[in-house]
Amino acid sequence: MINYPHKKNVPSVVKDQRHQHQKAIDFGKRGMSFEAQIVSANAYYLASGVAVIHKKPTPIQIVKVDYPKRAAATITEAYFKTPSTTDFNGIYNGIYVDFEAKETTNKTTFPLANVHGHQVKHLVAVAEQKGFAFLLVKFVTLDEIYLLMSDTLHQFWQEYEKGIRKSIKRDEFMAYGTRVPNQTYPSVDYLKTIDQLLNKRR
Amino acid sequence: MINYPHKKNVPSVVKDQRHQHQKAIDFGKRGMSFEAQIVSANAYYLASGVAVIHKKPTPIQIVKVDYPKRAAATITEAYFKTPSTTDFNGIYNGIYVDFEAKETTNKTTFPLANVHGHQVKHLVAVAEQKGFAFLLVKFVTLDEIYLLMSDTLHQFWQEYEKGIRKSIKRDEFMAYGTRVPNQTYPSVDYLKTIDQLLNKRR
Repeated sequence: MINYPHKKNVPSVVKDQRHQHQKAIDFGKRGMSFEAQIVSANAYYLASGVAVIHKKPTPIQIVKVDYPKRAAATITEAYFKTPSTTDFNGIYNGIYVDFEAKETTNKTTFPLANVHGHQVKHLVAVAEQKGFAFLLVKFVTLDEIYLLMSDTLHQFWQEYEKGIRKSIKRDEFMAYGTRVPNQTYPSVDYLKTIDQLLNKRR
Repeated sequence: MINYPHKKNVPSVVKDQRHQHQKAIDFGKRGMSFEAQIVSANAYYLASGVAVIHKKPTPIQIVKVDYPKRAAATITEAYFKTPSTTDFNGIYNGIYVDFEAKETTNKTTFPLANVHGHQVKHLVAVAEQKGFAFLLVKFVTLDEIYLLMSDTLHQFWQEYEKGIRKSIKRDEFMAYGTRVPNQTYPSVDYLKTIDQLLNKRR
């Protein structure tokens, strides 16, 4: 019998919390979480002077803060807020880049319940301001990443709101999105895919 | 003798954090805090389809989270992190905009201790990517707001790091920065000042 010390005797509270923060700190069998992959790509872009793109901090509603005399201020009561925008934004050679990154263990569909309506609205507003706005989805089990521009996402989203659609099929990502190729470093070189799409536009 | 209980025996780290947090919740005699004024201008820009610029959430290190059965997850231990970037960023008609906003009650100088080195570094990196990067400073007592581009800020910052300079004089803001005029609504129409600077460049 294999013993997983970290998975036993852990109250569900902590497990849940682990799940929440998993994205940032958990390094699973398949390597990094998708978010960590993107953060790593961004660090590479920043260090090589290619782009300045950061993950936004998780929005939190602070209720109570303690100011101990000789220690750092401690937040003792706070709540997670629903993000009003997306996870990542920044600048790449004069282009404003804004996107939400999601992963799914599904093999054939990406459930649209994973996206918030105001995030779609935000991406649409960014595109109207001539920004490069998109959704980045990783099918973890397949190890496939797709970039879907905000206008296409918006169309799917309208169908979702009408109750006609619940998800975006992998086939649809293949048809209407652009595959972000797998590579060694950075593992998610999404700026290369942006270049590809910008070249098509020209 | 006056006793300032909260100003004594507080490590400078805590003071910094308190100051940081104050911006969000402090509403002074003159009405809104500077940050709230900018947030209000951004809401106006967003609603009128002029720009999509948001304040980034305060970065927080979450340590403990409780998951009560029938209530929202409660963060019970967390700490303020030093921000690695700036307060505000977004897009204005194809232009990436990134800035830090500060206020001072001083009448003649803005102490550079109010700015973090990595914020200056971030603004410089943004300017290198052809973004519009600047510092917005409000002299609260005078009710005067100035926009200072990142290259000028960087020069002053280098003098600060060498120990030659401690602050930026109001006179220097007048000479090297651009005044953001006072008006009724939005009270800080900084995009107008950006337009003015962009027209000069052309």
